[in-house]
Order: sequence, then C-alpha cells, then structure tokens
Amino acid sequence: MAKINENYLKLPGSYLFSEIAKRVAAYKEENPEAEVISLGIGDVTRPLPKVCVEAMTQAADEMGNVKTFRGYGPEQGYDFLREVIAEHNYKAKGIDIKAEEIFVSDGSKSDCGNIQEIFSKDSKVALPDPVYPVYLDTNVMAGRTGALMGDGYFEGVEYLSATEKNNFSPDLPSEKMDLIYLCSPNNPTGTALSRAALTKWVEYARENDAVILFDAAYAAYITSDDVPRSVYEIPGAKDVAIEFRSFSKTAGFTGTRCGYAVIPKNLMGTASDGTKVSLAKLWNRRQTTKFNGTAYIVQRAAAAVYTEEGQKQVKENIDYYMENARIIREGLKKTGLKAYGGVDAPYIWVKTAEPSWEFFDKLLTKAQVVGTPGAGFGPCGENYFRLTAFGDRQKTIEAIRRIVYKLH
Amino acid sequence: MAKINENYLKLPGSYLFSEIAKRVAAYKEENPEAEVISLGIGDVTRPLPKVCVEAMTQAADEMGNVKTFRGYGPEQGYDFLREVIAEHNYKAKGIDIKAEEIFVSDGSKSDCGNIQEIFSKDSKVALPDPVYPVYLDTNVMAGRTGALMGDGYFEGVEYLSATEKNNFSPDLPSEKMDLIYLCSPNNPTGTALSRAALTKWVEYARENDAVILFDAAYAAYITSDDVPRSVYEIPGAKDVAIEFRSFSKTAGFTGTRCGYAVIPKNLMGTASDGTKVSLAKLWNRRQTTKFNGTAYIVQRAAAAVYTEEGQKQVKENIDYYMENARIIREGLKKTGLKAYGGVDAPYIWVKTAEPSWEFFDKLLTKAQVVGTPGAGFGPCGENYFRLTAFGDRQKTIEAIRRIVYKLH
Repeated sequence: MAKINENYLKLPGSYLFSEIAKRVAAYKEENPEAEVISLGIGDVTRPLPKVCVEAMTQAADEMGNVKTFRGYGPEQGYDFLREVIAEHNYKAKGIDIKAEEIFVSDGSKSDCGNIQEIFSKDSKVALPDPVYPVYLDTNVMAGRTGALMGDGYFEGVEYLSATEKNNFSPDLPSEKMDLIYLCSPNNPTGTALSRAALTKWVEYARENDAVILFDAAYAAYITSDDVPRSVYEIPGAKDVAIEFRSFSKTAGFTGTRCGYAVIPKNLMGTASDGTKVSLAKLWNRRQTTKFNGTAYIVQRAAAAVYTEEGQKQVKENIDYYMENARIIREGLKKTGLKAYGGVDAPYIWVKTAEPSWEFFDKLLTKAQVVGTPGAGFGPCGENYFRLTAFGDRQKTIEAIRRIVYKLH
Repeated sequence: MAKINENYLKLPGSYLFSEIAKRVAAYKEENPEAEVISLGIGDVTRPLPKVCVEAMTQAADEMGNVKTFRGYGPEQGYDFLREVIAEHNYKAKGIDIKAEEIFVSDGSKSDCGNIQEIFSKDSKVALPDPVYPVYLDTNVMAGRTGALMGDGYFEGVEYLSATEKNNFSPDLPSEKMDLIYLCSPNNPTGTALSRAALTKWVEYARENDAVILFDAAYAAYITSDDVPRSVYEIPGAKDVAIEFRSFSKTAGFTGTRCGYAVIPKNLMGTASDGTKVSLAKLWNRRQTTKFNGTAYIVQRAAAAVYTEEGQKQVKENIDYYMENARIIREGLKKTGLKAYGGVDAPYIWVKTAEPSWEFFDKLLTKAQVVGTPGAGFGPCGENYFRLTAFGDRQKTIEAIRRIVYKLH
C-alpha cells in the first residue's frame, strides 16, 4: 500500500464538538422534556443581508444567460470585489493596501490553513494558546512539529499563553520565531490586542525577520478605540504581516464561503541563498495551482456588502449579536463567575473554578445550557469556558436567566 | 526574513496562457481588423442549466430567511448532494459506492492538487505526459521531485508518455510506483483509456501496492462503449483507486465551483510500522482542518443536475459541444493534418509537422485562429496542438473553414 503522511497520525481525534454533541444527546435522552439552549456554536444564525440575496439572485440569472454567463474567473478574485475591499476596508481608513494585494478565497479557514505551505518546513512557529485550532493542526500535518506530549503541548511549537495573568495579551517569545500566528479579536477568548500590544508584535517581527499571520476574522465586532481593526494600522506592518479577513462572521457567510488574504507586495521571504522572494508571488502560485477561484455568484454577494444599504444591513446583524454579548456579560456579573471578552468580539470567556468539562456538565445538567469547554482550544483554555453571542435573542436571555438563578 | 518553501522555485513560470494572450494581443495590434477566433480555452461557454439557476435562486432565498438560513455545512458536503451523486453516478450503474465515500469540494483542481498531502513525501509519483499540469506542479511544490532538467522533465518523476506510438494509452512504468495519476478522458489529448487499458492499470496498482488517482472530470463526454466512465467499473479498483469528478465540464460549473472526490472506505495506505490507515479518514481530516465546505447554494445547484429535467439540460449542452468536436474532426480530415480525440472528450489533439509554438503562430497569422501549443502540457505534447470544442457553433464552423482553406 502507498505510504501515508504520518504527521497526520500525531493529531489527536478532533473530538471537541462531537464530544459535546454526545453529552448533549445523552442528557436529552435521559431528560426528554428538557429545553436545552446552546450558546456553544461559533456560527451565525441571522439570515444573509438582503443585498447579498439580491446580488446572488441577479448573478444566478446572469449565469443562466449565454450573453452574461461566466466560466473560470481569476483565481485571485474578480476585480469588482478586490477593489471594493481595498477601498472600503483599507483606503477609506487611511491604509495603503491595493486591490492587487488582496487574494479572494472561499474563506479564512482555507487561507489560514494553506498559508504555511509557502514557508520552509523548518520554520519555527509561534501561536496563541488558547486559539482556533487550525493554525496548530495544519503545521502538525505539514511536519513542523514533534509529537503531542502528555501535557497537551506539541513539541517544537512556541505556545503564546493568554490567560488572566497577562490580560489575554501574550508575551513576546523567548526565542527567535519565523512565523507568528495572531488572532485578534481572539477566538475563543473574545479579547483583542490593543494598539500598543500589536505594535510590540510588529516591532518584534521587524527585528527578528519574522512574518505575522494576522487572523482578523472578527474585526467587524471591534468597538474599543484602542484596538486596531487591521494589522496594517501599525506602522511598518506591511513589511512583516499577512492579514486574513472573512465575510463569515461579518456578513453571515459561514455557509456561503468567502474570505481574503492580504499580502502586501513589498512583503518578502528569503531563500537559503539569501535571495528575497515576494510572498505574494508565492501565494499567487499556490492559489493558481491548487484553487480555481470562488464562485462568481458568491463574489457578487460579497461585493454587495460594501454598498451603503449592505453596510447598514451588516451593522444590524452585528448589533444584534453584540447586544446578545452585552446581555451575557451583564448577566454573568450577577453570578460569582468572572468573564472576559464580549466587547470586541461575539465570544465571552468565562473563568471556571473547576476543569472545563466539569463546568460543561454542571451547566448542562443544572441550567440546560450548552457552551464550549475552553480546554478544547489549547492547554491554557483549561478552567475557562466559551459562551457565544450568535444565538437567538430570546433564547440567549433565557439561557442567562437560568445561569443566574439555577447554576449555584 | 522568514524562509520560504524553496520547492516553489523549481517551477518554471506558468506562462502558457499568458504567452498565448501576449502573442494574440501583439497580432491584433498589428492587424486591428482581424477577427481572431479562439479554439484555445478549456472553458465552457454555454450558460448554466435552467434547473441550476432555479435551484440557486431558491437557495439564495432560503439564505435570506431566518427560518431556513444555513450556516456552516458539513465539510464533506450535504447529504442531499452526496446521496444523489452516489445514486445516479454509481448505484444506478451497478457500482457500489456509498454517499459517505463521496467528499464534495469546490472543484477537481483543488482535490487533484490537495490529495498528495495525505501521502508520504517520499512517495514515487507517475503521471501522464502530456497532461493537465496540476498533478506535476503540486508534487513539485510538495518537494517530491528534483529539479527541472534541460529536456523539460523533472528529476524524480515517472512520466507516462502518451503519443501516437502507443495510441495515447501509456505503458506501465518500469519501476514500482506509489502514486499514479491517470486522466481519462485526457486533457489535452482528448483520448480515453479503454476498459482493457484501465484494467491493466488497476492490476498494476493491486500488484504494486500503488494508489491510482483517477481524474474523470470529462467522464460526461464519453461516447465509446469500451471506455469506462468510472475507474470503479474495473473489478478490484475500490481497493486501489481514488476518483475525482467535477460539475465544471459536465454542467458548466467552471465559474460556480463544485466537484467531488470518491474514496472507498476499504482503500488503505500504510504507516512506516506497517499499520493500515484508511485514506478516507486521512482525507476527511485534511478537509475538516483546511476546508469549510462548498457554498450551500452551489450544492443545491449541483443536486439539481440529477433531476430528470437537469439531466436533459446537461445533455443538451454536452451534445452542443460534441457536435462542435465533430465539426472540428471532420473539417481537419480535409487538411493534411492528423487529429486525435474529440470522440470521448471536447478536445481535439492535432499532430503538427513543426514545433507547437511555430504551429501556433502559423495558425494565428494565416487563419486568425487561436489554439493551445501541446508543449505546454508536457514534453510529449511537443509537435501537437490542442483545439477545443467549447466555443460558439458559428465561430467554430468559421474557424475550421479558415483552417481548411487558408492554412496551407
């Protein structure tokens, strides 16, 4: 038989959400009348903005007509979309990012997962702990790590701990790193890097010839003045940072799939002989070889987000979720539980006295509320618990009522 | 600066289609009145089937309603699509492939490019010559080859020559291979492997513990009785073959993006300690980590292809293209040019007396017709030229008229 990529065998089973589903199913079977409310899932529930539905409908119509039909599109995305992204998210905010520096994709999960391919296999990788598991898992699969150790850490990876102690803003690494993943606002903690903190990272990257891989999937939720929406708000970041953005959480595209990577044209990597190589060129090669662009109809829907009406509709959805976040935060104040996040992100990160999974069971059995054990996002997530603000308003209110009155 | 993946530097520039565009633009500038017709592009031109447009419109509507909105879908594709694929393309044809063995994606380019990730880096790779360049390029990028040599071949890859001499049906490799890419019907030659030829490959794979990566993107165009539509028509193939299929050329989805990989559940790879590992499990891990599923609206459009009306509409488009292919083949008989393909695929592969690029220039300047130089698809493509049947009927007729009357 053909030999497999054995790095895959280093990964533990991806059991977080299946374990949650199993425990919930077991509870429901024993308690068939219980009305379980989930504040666990990191997925949107509000419908697509009307402008997006209209744009998709019109684009579908174009695809059915021989005169307006579109075949293969550019792998980098259509100019009509790249241009409105550059204009709206960068130029209008005083950031000099050009349309040709934007690479449209089928979502940030693909981009965050694939970006490591263009770097050397012996790159030293640093990533936040806790964080979205894709950064770690894709580097394990690529062979950039050793084995998973008994303490839950992979050998050969620098974990950037984010806990109460450092106010969820990781310290700089002790050794020189090549690739640094940052996620701000962070999934799962719901906290975001301040301008000062991000400046420190950009300076580190400039001094250490590192590249920052900046995942800003939740940028649209930021409300604090001192939290940058884009890494490129920090002077000098264009020489050291790639940014990932998504329409998933901004405009409800989790089931419609569109995101983009920004790779400034002056951002360079180096070959072993010292030659400088444009990272945008390498990414372009990767994308043109392994990807055939995002569906035309989806790109039309994404472009509609940037119309005046689109911005209004998107804001309504985000306001809806952030009002849920406020309800959760305010409610938790009435309990003995400490909570973080929920101001610049739709996630609330609850400190628990007991291990995450014990808290999960307690919340389920006492309050019939489901959340996500923090341990699922990295070793530093132990003794934390994630609640999300993506639910229905009435259910969110009821869930918090139960947590306040029934949990203790 | 961060170190790059230097394997990318082994790849020559991807200049085939940009060189074509450059030469055409230069010719048009010198000859502004010339009406250049392209039979070069491997992209469909007929609109999406009406059933697909209707399904997309309805799905867009669902996405705009809170009660029917869909967030993240399963990374493997929705059951409604996997089930109709299994039923229509396999069970109805007497092939035992189950819905859970089908992994829906955003297209065959992604699948054919990504599949190598689940195999060991030291796998020995064989691939047809000439062929769709993605198989080779993605293995170069993954470090499975040496350098590009002066003769146009990469070191460390087994090229399976397909020329007039072997009737475009490659001979078995001389050494033991681990991974064997096959493309049938073949892009660019337009020829397909007979049942006898494919049986020989399946037997080779079974005897040599190899895995066949079978790209059947053009299966819908097959008209010959002795050409299998699926590798699984060959007994024993389920133990040794992965199959890739696409809606791109079948139903005009090149700009809509949907395909799928079939990985039978009894297909195994092996770890270095001899442990057998399910390739479907590895692929599932790859897809759930680096991919978030294909857009819901696109999957609804794909499922509509399998309705009775959908099958009728798809057949009309394919018949249209294959009538173009017939016109091209018949026309070429009136010239001194030998041509192959065009019976089981929308590609016609023309033997040229001169090097491919010289023929390109001659065709452009004498007949104002654009095609694709065979050399762009591998060393064995030299002295061949690809014409495609994806064009408009009247333009195809006019292009062939010019080739017949003006070329010599």
